[in-house]
Amino acid sequence: MGIALGPNQYGKAEVRLVTVDRQGPVHHLKDVTVSTSLRGGLERTHLTGDNTDVVATDTQKNTVYAFAADGVGQIEDFALRLAEHFTGAFEHITGARMLISEHGWNRIDVDGTPHEHAFSRAGGEERTTAVTVQDGRAWVVSGLTGLTVLKSTGSEFHGFPRDEYTTLAETTDRILATAVTARWRYSAASGIDWALSFDEIRRTLLEAFAAKHSLSLQQTLYAMGEAVLEARPEVAEIRLSLPNKHHFLVDLSPFGLSNENEVFHAADRPYGLIEGTVIRDDEPADAAGLAWYSLPEF
Amino acid sequence: MGIALGPNQYGKAEVRLVTVDRQGPVHHLKDVTVSTSLRGGLERTHLTGDNTDVVATDTQKNTVYAFAADGVGQIEDFALRLAEHFTGAFEHITGARMLISEHGWNRIDVDGTPHEHAFSRAGGEERTTAVTVQDGRAWVVSGLTGLTVLKSTGSEFHGFPRDEYTTLAETTDRILATAVTARWRYSAASGIDWALSFDEIRRTLLEAFAAKHSLSLQQTLYAMGEAVLEARPEVAEIRLSLPNKHHFLVDLSPFGLSNENEVFHAADRPYGLIEGTVIRDDEPADAAGLAWYSLPEF
Amino acid sequence: MGIALGPNQYGKAEVRLVTVDRQGPVHHLKDVTVSTSLRGGLERTHLTGDNTDVVATDTQKNTVYAFAADGVGQIEDFALRLAEHFTGAFEHITGARMLISEHGWNRIDVDGTPHEHAFSRAGGEERTTAVTVQDGRAWVVSGLTGLTVLKSTGSEFHGFPRDEYTTLAETTDRILATAVTARWRYSAASGIDWALSFDEIRRTLLEAFAAKHSLSLQQTLYAMGEAVLEARPEVAEIRLSLPNKHHFLVDLSPFGLSNENEVFHAADRPYGLIEGTVIRDDEPADAAGLAWYSLPEF
Amino acid sequence: MGIALGPNQYGKAEVRLVTVDRQGPVHHLKDVTVSTSLRGGLERTHLTGDNTDVVATDTQKNTVYAFAADGVGQIEDFALRLAEHFTGAFEHITGARMLISEHGWNRIDVDGTPHEHAFSRAGGEERTTAVTVQDGRAWVVSGLTGLTVLKSTGSEFHGFPRDEYTTLAETTDRILATAVTARWRYSAASGIDWALSFDEIRRTLLEAFAAKHSLSLQQTLYAMGEAVLEARPEVAEIRLSLPNKHHFLVDLSPFGLSNENEVFHAADRPYGLIEGTVIRDDEPADAAGLAWYSLPEF
Repeated sequence: MGIALGPNQYGKAEVRLVTVDRQGPVHHLKDVTVSTSLRGGLERTHLTGDNTDVVATDTQKNTVYAFAADGVGQIEDFALRLAEHFTGAFEHITGARMLISEHGWNRIDVDGTPHEHAFSRAGGEERTTAVTVQDGRAWVVSGLTGLTVLKSTGSEFHGFPRDEYTTLAETTDRILATAVTARWRYSAASGIDWALSFDEIRRTLLEAFAAKHSLSLQQTLYAMGEAVLEARPEVAEIRLSLPNKHHFLVDLSPFGLSNENEVFHAADRPYGLIEGTVIRDDEPADAAGLAWYSLPEF
Repeated sequence: MGIALGPNQYGKAEVRLVTVDRQGPVHHLKDVTVSTSLRGGLERTHLTGDNTDVVATDTQKNTVYAFAADGVGQIEDFALRLAEHFTGAFEHITGARMLISEHGWNRIDVDGTPHEHAFSRAGGEERTTAVTVQDGRAWVVSGLTGLTVLKSTGSEFHGFPRDEYTTLAETTDRILATAVTARWRYSAASGIDWALSFDEIRRTLLEAFAAKHSLSLQQTLYAMGEAVLEARPEVAEIRLSLPNKHHFLVDLSPFGLSNENEVFHAADRPYGLIEGTVIRDDEPADAAGLAWYSLPEF
Repeated sequence: MGIALGPNQYGKAEVRLVTVDRQGPVHHLKDVTVSTSLRGGLERTHLTGDNTDVVATDTQKNTVYAFAADGVGQIEDFALRLAEHFTGAFEHITGARMLISEHGWNRIDVDGTPHEHAFSRAGGEERTTAVTVQDGRAWVVSGLTGLTVLKSTGSEFHGFPRDEYTTLAETTDRILATAVTARWRYSAASGIDWALSFDEIRRTLLEAFAAKHSLSLQQTLYAMGEAVLEARPEVAEIRLSLPNKHHFLVDLSPFGLSNENEVFHAADRPYGLIEGTVIRDDEPADAAGLAWYSLPEF
Repeated sequence: MGIALGPNQYGKAEVRLVTVDRQGPVHHLKDVTVSTSLRGGLERTHLTGDNTDVVATDTQKNTVYAFAADGVGQIEDFALRLAEHFTGAFEHITGARMLISEHGWNRIDVDGTPHEHAFSRAGGEERTTAVTVQDGRAWVVSGLTGLTVLKSTGSEFHGFPRDEYTTLAETTDRILATAVTARWRYSAASGIDWALSFDEIRRTLLEAFAAKHSLSLQQTLYAMGEAVLEARPEVAEIRLSLPNKHHFLVDLSPFGLSNENEVFHAADRPYGLIEGTVIRDDEPADAAGLAWYSLPEF
């Protein structure tokens, strides 16, 4: 019986990069957080401390900043450029995964006009991508996180099984709220208008959430994913993680007051967590390849 | 020599309250976090555990929910209603301070039309109020927090003293970024259009940040505060706390690249912290009274 | 071409459970956070909103509390009890995964004697388990997180490749610091003294970190994993995620001072992130089964 | 009517400093976070952007690191050294406040022996100090934060007033849990054994919490503060902020189970918040001076 090195990767996490495009008086801002991971023949450093194969994480960070001198562009393209560089430049590095989050900024209005170089942060939502390159193949999984949404009606929950531990009342009208984390796998790693695709997917997710009368958060999840796959042929698969941010109706009857779905306690923990995948059923079995490897499964 | 009870207060912190105004198909949402603190003759519970004077924090929470049955309205009005209730209903409770944060929501657009009952969270920014009532007097300190802003040019910093520990280079062009926390004291606790005042103060702060060419963050702070006092006669005083969210120019010269204020590292810690007050110089000495008591000083 | 439901699960996340064993004047405390996930034939709720198969997440929460009435015991046993209950009680629920974190408490000493019922929190470290049951098979992956360690010497890093983006200096003496997240898969789901095994693995990880002279964090990672597998036959595999919490030597030369590895800046971001697996090389290919499914890969 | 600059301060927040004392094979570690604030004649930069008086926050950071070359020692002494330097070196800087938090580390045991240079983080608790120097006077307010404690019995709460909003049941046996933040003002800024005093105050707070049978958290607060003042003549005043971390008894009766104070839900929000001061009643009215200025009031 022996002991061996199994799967492994290493890199620089959370490189905070802001670029300013100053070609003219109207500046353009990119604000991203980049995490790099490299994979390959890394036995020597693990077993003996021989670092011949270890592209230093500091070098990875420097590379991110140096590549940004040519502009970041769409985060998918920037991640692909980086991943292809690392796997191309070092013989023992056969795989790379780049995670990028993009943080939005809006222009500040001054006297009703968008300012040329003053911005305000757009909120907690982030656009994300996870690009994997391995032995010449590439996969792109993009997404968003921190998109918090709420419906004040149009949500029911009933018909669930009742056992000895069930106390929940059935309801035909409740608040439904969640913070959407979505990741979708593109069917290709090139030839896609990343910006347009992101905007349309985000719009589709929001519209499906709003428009779908909900009998369960699972049904809403599926409707959101299905709407994306129907609208966007470039998406092969979408995974959604939807915390059920419970809003409990406050019992005001001890105070002689009624509460017709008007006053709620927004609870922190515990919360329901609904996770699921919507996928094209004609996908080849191996199409996903390493796209999801070492990402959260949902 | 003896030992005595000094200043004290107690209450329920962070009551998470969401209300839905359902008078008609178009719903309106209020999402607030309320923290109550009561003050007064509370020696008995401290010294002997006799709770005759202790309005339970659970009762305070219930009161918040019960009062919400009539609607929340402007957070300043809701805080005043609560503070006046607690100080009026219990003889030993002579003072109350209510802290309320309001979290924004936007309507989701469906086919270009704002939805009647579906919303998305507006981001990390919060509107705040701190209302104090003591022995029949009332003070209102409102504000905002989490308003992150950035200028990609129009900011200089030079002419500062150099001693043996000074290594910072002077600059005539840097990124200036901060997350604004502002609190302003109103000159009165009634007769003010809270919503209008808030909107105008927020707009004024943003415009002053954007428009003022900055020689120091202190100068920007003062300009922001001065603009508010000039525009809004109902504001007696404003305090700003401005972390200098450093964006450091990355040295790309080792890679044979220039960096003309285009590629930056957004640093976490440490950060500069600039705190200051702008105030009308004809304010009576005791006008502020207890307005700021047990609030952060800046 | 069609669209279908892919992998999915749902449950109640972060149920905060504290139990007190009061059999005698000396109380014993358990403080755990439980997250449940159920899997199985859940198409109906996703596709039509028919909730016939949906054991409500509220019921799952109730079950956690009800089962705690018999005591929690070792978290692995509690997770197995819950997972077997859910998969046994509902025909359509064929799989379950229970995540439990345990938070430590120490007794407060009074006059040098441990108090019978007063405790202080032991810190940020947590003991974890992830138990999966599917179609009658069970897997146990236990671990720990938040164990922050530091060596002030005994760590080198040199011999790494230098390309055009490399600026890092080689060093034969640096601070090495990391916050250990470890997960190990047990070779069986019963017959193991969970408490003893955890204590010994934790001790082994700490001793290996301290004793191993480090030429890279990868080498330290492997040494830590190897030591666990050598010492504990019940462990089939261990995965470690080690952020390299950089401590940068401050350049004091501008101030006429030397710095012989004595004054450091502890940086936040970015940080290196070293992730790897140490595994027995005679493991059957399918031994891991669903043990790691939908867990972080490292 | 005019507009003027009111109270203000500025500095570098959260300088992360780690020092290693390497005088011999047994290393000693100090891990602190330092925040500096300077006060004085700073009108010029606010009003005109003339930075003649602005000791750059970068210079303040450099000074912290440079002073650490001589060792940090007790955080009170380090803060006093820094504050006296800043107020002494710059004519316009008449006041300074230094905040320091110290993070604990324990030695790792290897084969039962404490290791010479390997450490593990001691948990979330921090030792703090806030030192203020103004025009030659100095005040020291030290403290601790993040000390979470719990009693599984020995706590009652009853006899509180009942109004129309009161639903809370009276109890003679509940869990009492809190996360202690304490700040105490020393009667002098020199001649005190800071390390001994801290250890004894911390021990006294813990013992009082454990030993005092509690009829209210207010009573516990007072007992903790009183015990410190009785034991430590060097302490003039102590302020405590005690969140009541509610542990709610779970109603297991729907499941046919009893719950004799054994199974609890640990709630996040809202929470009670009890804040108070215990002070010597023969303190001169102006003894506190600027000690608490711009600190949280409790």
